[in-house]
Amino acid sequence: MGSNSFGRAFQVTTWGESHGAAMGAVIDGCPAGLEISAEEIDAALARRSPGRNQFVSPRKEPDRVEILSGLFEGRTTGTPISLLIWNRDVKSQHYDGKVLRPGHAQASYLDKYGRVDHRGGGRASARETVCRVAAGAIAQKLLSLWGIHCLAWLCQVGDLQAASVDGKWEQVQQAVWTDPLFCSDPEASKQMQKLIQDCSEQGDSIGGLVQLCCWGVPAGLGDPVYEKMEALLAKAMLSLPASKGFEIGEGFGAAQLRGSQHNDPFGSLEGAIRPLTNRAGGTLGGITTGLELMARVAFKPTSSIRKTQSSVDIEGKPVQLQLDPTSRHDPCVAIRAVPVVEAMAALVLADALLLQRLARVE
Amino acid sequence: MGSNSFGRAFQVTTWGESHGAAMGAVIDGCPAGLEISAEEIDAALARRSPGRNQFVSPRKEPDRVEILSGLFEGRTTGTPISLLIWNRDVKSQHYDGKVLRPGHAQASYLDKYGRVDHRGGGRASARETVCRVAAGAIAQKLLSLWGIHCLAWLCQVGDLQAASVDGKWEQVQQAVWTDPLFCSDPEASKQMQKLIQDCSEQGDSIGGLVQLCCWGVPAGLGDPVYEKMEALLAKAMLSLPASKGFEIGEGFGAAQLRGSQHNDPFGSLEGAIRPLTNRAGGTLGGITTGLELMARVAFKPTSSIRKTQSSVDIEGKPVQLQLDPTSRHDPCVAIRAVPVVEAMAALVLADALLLQRLARVE
Amino acid sequence: MGSNSFGRAFQVTTWGESHGAAMGAVIDGCPAGLEISAEEIDAALARRSPGRNQFVSPRKEPDRVEILSGLFEGRTTGTPISLLIWNRDVKSQHYDGKVLRPGHAQASYLDKYGRVDHRGGGRASARETVCRVAAGAIAQKLLSLWGIHCLAWLCQVGDLQAASVDGKWEQVQQAVWTDPLFCSDPEASKQMQKLIQDCSEQGDSIGGLVQLCCWGVPAGLGDPVYEKMEALLAKAMLSLPASKGFEIGEGFGAAQLRGSQHNDPFGSLEGAIRPLTNRAGGTLGGITTGLELMARVAFKPTSSIRKTQSSVDIEGKPVQLQLDPTSRHDPCVAIRAVPVVEAMAALVLADALLLQRLARVE
Amino acid sequence: MGSNSFGRAFQVTTWGESHGAAMGAVIDGCPAGLEISAEEIDAALARRSPGRNQFVSPRKEPDRVEILSGLFEGRTTGTPISLLIWNRDVKSQHYDGKVLRPGHAQASYLDKYGRVDHRGGGRASARETVCRVAAGAIAQKLLSLWGIHCLAWLCQVGDLQAASVDGKWEQVQQAVWTDPLFCSDPEASKQMQKLIQDCSEQGDSIGGLVQLCCWGVPAGLGDPVYEKMEALLAKAMLSLPASKGFEIGEGFGAAQLRGSQHNDPFGSLEGAIRPLTNRAGGTLGGITTGLELMARVAFKPTSSIRKTQSSVDIEGKPVQLQLDPTSRHDPCVAIRAVPVVEAMAALVLADALLLQRLARVE
Repeated sequence: MGSNSFGRAFQVTTWGESHGAAMGAVIDGCPAGLEISAEEIDAALARRSPGRNQFVSPRKEPDRVEILSGLFEGRTTGTPISLLIWNRDVKSQHYDGKVLRPGHAQASYLDKYGRVDHRGGGRASARETVCRVAAGAIAQKLLSLWGIHCLAWLCQVGDLQAASVDGKWEQVQQAVWTDPLFCSDPEASKQMQKLIQDCSEQGDSIGGLVQLCCWGVPAGLGDPVYEKMEALLAKAMLSLPASKGFEIGEGFGAAQLRGSQHNDPFGSLEGAIRPLTNRAGGTLGGITTGLELMARVAFKPTSSIRKTQSSVDIEGKPVQLQLDPTSRHDPCVAIRAVPVVEAMAALVLADALLLQRLARVE
Repeated sequence: MGSNSFGRAFQVTTWGESHGAAMGAVIDGCPAGLEISAEEIDAALARRSPGRNQFVSPRKEPDRVEILSGLFEGRTTGTPISLLIWNRDVKSQHYDGKVLRPGHAQASYLDKYGRVDHRGGGRASARETVCRVAAGAIAQKLLSLWGIHCLAWLCQVGDLQAASVDGKWEQVQQAVWTDPLFCSDPEASKQMQKLIQDCSEQGDSIGGLVQLCCWGVPAGLGDPVYEKMEALLAKAMLSLPASKGFEIGEGFGAAQLRGSQHNDPFGSLEGAIRPLTNRAGGTLGGITTGLELMARVAFKPTSSIRKTQSSVDIEGKPVQLQLDPTSRHDPCVAIRAVPVVEAMAALVLADALLLQRLARVE
Repeated sequence: MGSNSFGRAFQVTTWGESHGAAMGAVIDGCPAGLEISAEEIDAALARRSPGRNQFVSPRKEPDRVEILSGLFEGRTTGTPISLLIWNRDVKSQHYDGKVLRPGHAQASYLDKYGRVDHRGGGRASARETVCRVAAGAIAQKLLSLWGIHCLAWLCQVGDLQAASVDGKWEQVQQAVWTDPLFCSDPEASKQMQKLIQDCSEQGDSIGGLVQLCCWGVPAGLGDPVYEKMEALLAKAMLSLPASKGFEIGEGFGAAQLRGSQHNDPFGSLEGAIRPLTNRAGGTLGGITTGLELMARVAFKPTSSIRKTQSSVDIEGKPVQLQLDPTSRHDPCVAIRAVPVVEAMAALVLADALLLQRLARVE
Repeated sequence: MGSNSFGRAFQVTTWGESHGAAMGAVIDGCPAGLEISAEEIDAALARRSPGRNQFVSPRKEPDRVEILSGLFEGRTTGTPISLLIWNRDVKSQHYDGKVLRPGHAQASYLDKYGRVDHRGGGRASARETVCRVAAGAIAQKLLSLWGIHCLAWLCQVGDLQAASVDGKWEQVQQAVWTDPLFCSDPEASKQMQKLIQDCSEQGDSIGGLVQLCCWGVPAGLGDPVYEKMEALLAKAMLSLPASKGFEIGEGFGAAQLRGSQHNDPFGSLEGAIRPLTNRAGGTLGGITTGLELMARVAFKPTSSIRKTQSSVDIEGKPVQLQLDPTSRHDPCVAIRAVPVVEAMAALVLADALLLQRLARVE
């Protein structure tokens, strides 16, 4: 029932506030025998890390995970894996905790809990996603044993769209991981960089879209009727800070299509019966079809902007809010969301893969 | 862990296949003392019922619920409420169970379970949603005690869009419930009717969008970080048959906005601190802000079409699939999805409303 | 979170009140492909049924299960199995709903829910266990595929103890199922029958103990640390009406032993390392050892007695309570508890057997 | 679904192995606004701590908790509370990891997970209970706001029984907390001390019973039918290392009583309707009656003894096991179990108290 846990078989519980001592995750249900190291997790954290370049918030957070339990001689033992990441770069905040920042959750937390840790974003901070990425790294390692690979990339910023991707996952990964924006399209990326730079210089921010693709997903994953694969992915993605939408396959575009345009015909593919096209995005009836999972997640523009904004303080008195011009914020959260989207997809799939072991008598 | 249960505090478990004897739901966690009757549930079922008019599948299903437990002297007792709806109109199927119908889940079920009840759509049939509507009617009754009202309407079919809605929920409900398509805009509805008619005559189908709005939602609902209000709604909606996307507030449009355009400024509203605009769609940090919840759900065109389609049988042998021209299917599933979207929203909110009782010591 | 659900992988949700229209269970998580029939479940219900002989309540309840979903061509499909049992023998009650009967839960329900269905025992009635037995029959069928057999028997009534059992499960089952009290020891059974007869004639009731033994349980079942096998069994048994205690292995007797007396030495048994004795009762650290699970459950004397008792009505006014002398009650609930204890053990083991599939990577 | 989580509303997830770096707990669901400090938790840990005197294992573990999240200005915020306790006193083990120690779980873990952390007891070690006590201290603080107090004491060692307790909880606490064995009866305690001393000198160990009493528990807690109060307590207690039995009220003794002896008559008590005696132990139908919760837990003798024992190594080769005579073990685990039993009871009650907020509409 805990709202800070995710997954049913591969269950992750996270804790920690942005301005507290540390962040952490406990993974309960990772099967015994998986080879994993802190270094592998740190590599995933490095991709998420702010400070990579000028397009993301210039904080220096040399995130290093400590694995405090659940590992013996380099392999998981079946007992809970405790991951700890110290908050090394916690400065006193750049903003006044008594003034409500538009787009932030401070007022909502007050309404909910009657109090709020006003030192920073608390659990609503994007800092929280560090735990998702750490846990996701273990999930991805598990998935790789079955040849499943989750990859995300920036596919739109403002109205600039990247060209659609074609290729094997290794090639796409190579292109995405070397791009400063995690964009799959180097030409589009250059334009996006300019747009983001402009926004940043104006003290503003900009929204974006992240594309997710999972290769190698076997047919049969996902559970009818409330735990459909797309429902789990949707929940995973809408639980991310700043996310505003999720679509699978043709998504919102499907509303404009006719059945004869949208239906994927079935055929035989390497001995198995599979849809021959993938407008559905990899599921039918909430169960994977054996084709790639294809989905998109929308992110709003970063709420923290340096432009002056109208707001109130916690007493309700009107104020003009002006953030410290030296304060550090990503001009486009969608960039840093890329590895987090991957991590969440990996958590969903690791869970579904394990649960599929329960589906049949034999 | 069961995948046929929804909700944490107000928990609904559903069962039944489209061609089985009956459909049912068990509600565990409805608080004691709620006044509810079978008639109230039947009224909700009637709105969902196919056969209302020519725009939805002409099956006659005079759905009547039997309340088998959990009620005494017209009020809930706190024990599980068992709802039973007999499948009165189960005909022998119009299609050959050995041929895979594009867009349907039969192949996925086979991949998952190694077998499938091929008499009809089984759990993947839209028939399954009758239980959601029945349970949702109880949730809506509960919500009405707190002045919360969930309403959905058809806002797009193909590329035809309804005008945006403005008004009190009673007025909107009046407009929507009297429109044959559950559309809020009578002019657009007429055009949509013509488009759907055209599709139907061509043996084809068409996709659509459903708009959701919940009035009277108090601030503070939704639980960080994985049970955020938008994550719960997204999961609820993507668990619906034929749904392909979910967005809240500006949704995918937010990707094109700047922070200075998207941020809702805070102000004082009737003594409470609230955002003065609602581009966020009613939540911040996954917690409701006290403004209306505004979301949209995308539905693909009905998979069952009368046009000839390429497919294979379960042995993988190519076939040309031609559905019985007299077979009955909704040309646009988004219409009948309207009351189901409402029901799912009500289930999410009833759950969140109860869980909010646990948030504070006092 | 629902309190009427049991199990994590093989999850059973039950509903129904003793004086309502029907009782039912929904099983979510039974793997696909299990062969099961209503007749097999009815056979289990017949063993539980009151009216078998003079030692149990003379109600006639020809319980017959209807399987409303989840089955196709005689095998489970992986979707929820809905079991329905009509309450055919619901008479108007023999007692005044306004008077509190000692040992019954009416007052507790009032304190909890603010209202109570006073027509009968409601969810607190032993009638509720019919659903456990029906679901347990399916679990037992599943277990039998792996050679696991759960058997319970009456081992004590008042201070009369049955001799301890030795033998294969088939022999024990033969002895127990043919005894009118489900006692394993024919000599002790005769004395117990006389004692129960005496109690009954005096308008009184008597307590008893039920022994549980599960044969063929593989090593490795049960999950540290809160889902230990003995913890799950204890919860299962203490959730039964009228149960007051649970012990495994030497149980309470272990308090009087020394380590050198209690420790089971390890040895090699048919190639596997196993304890050579079984004072532990089949688990170590909450995980099964590969030996038989041995536990005992204590049941209080039936609360409904015909002797005059002091009580109050729901207004708090003192009354002398005198049940209708023709009212029907088991003089010793432990007898009818025997098949229910078996059923609960089967539910626990089926769940643990499935969950064990998640324990290892390979 | 995680097996290292306990509770539904007040949910505790624990992690850590006895010979790992640290132990920890994450509490998700503690309501916002509770005043709590590390010092209060440390005080509870001190009571559990080995090394208190000669009757418990002489390890020195100056356990100190670090609260890493969920607290702000001395009060809970509603977000997860992460508790961390470093393992300061981890020595290289005194025993050979390749030899199976009778009564220990090493072989079971191997059967379950295919591997085991053989440096020590791992998750099966009594060290694991430090997290239960830490989390329990927060639960007890919460309960104290409602005047609920959980207290346990040693009531039997071998065949030596303490006199039954009579008095207010403050007096009992005073007596128990000052006794070296946590025994309520100073005379019995002296005899028990001698018996334990004898066992210890012989290189042996001895079992014991712990009595639990919870004062101030309101009527109405516990949820029918599978989450009955006694079922939850039974699960909690049987999840403890070395526990072998649980009983509530008259418990196993109830098997020997007649209904007329066992039934508690109802009466009016300070305006409320309550049972006038408490043979039931504080619940009816699984719901608290408003009287004290009275239960007992049986613990086996410590498995680690210095006497020579027959066993095998992990290859199955027979060995004579002789523990290092200087190794440190409690001669009677029941003593140190006392504060752990209290902690588990507090966790159960805090959960039930919160869940009761969901029971009624009003």
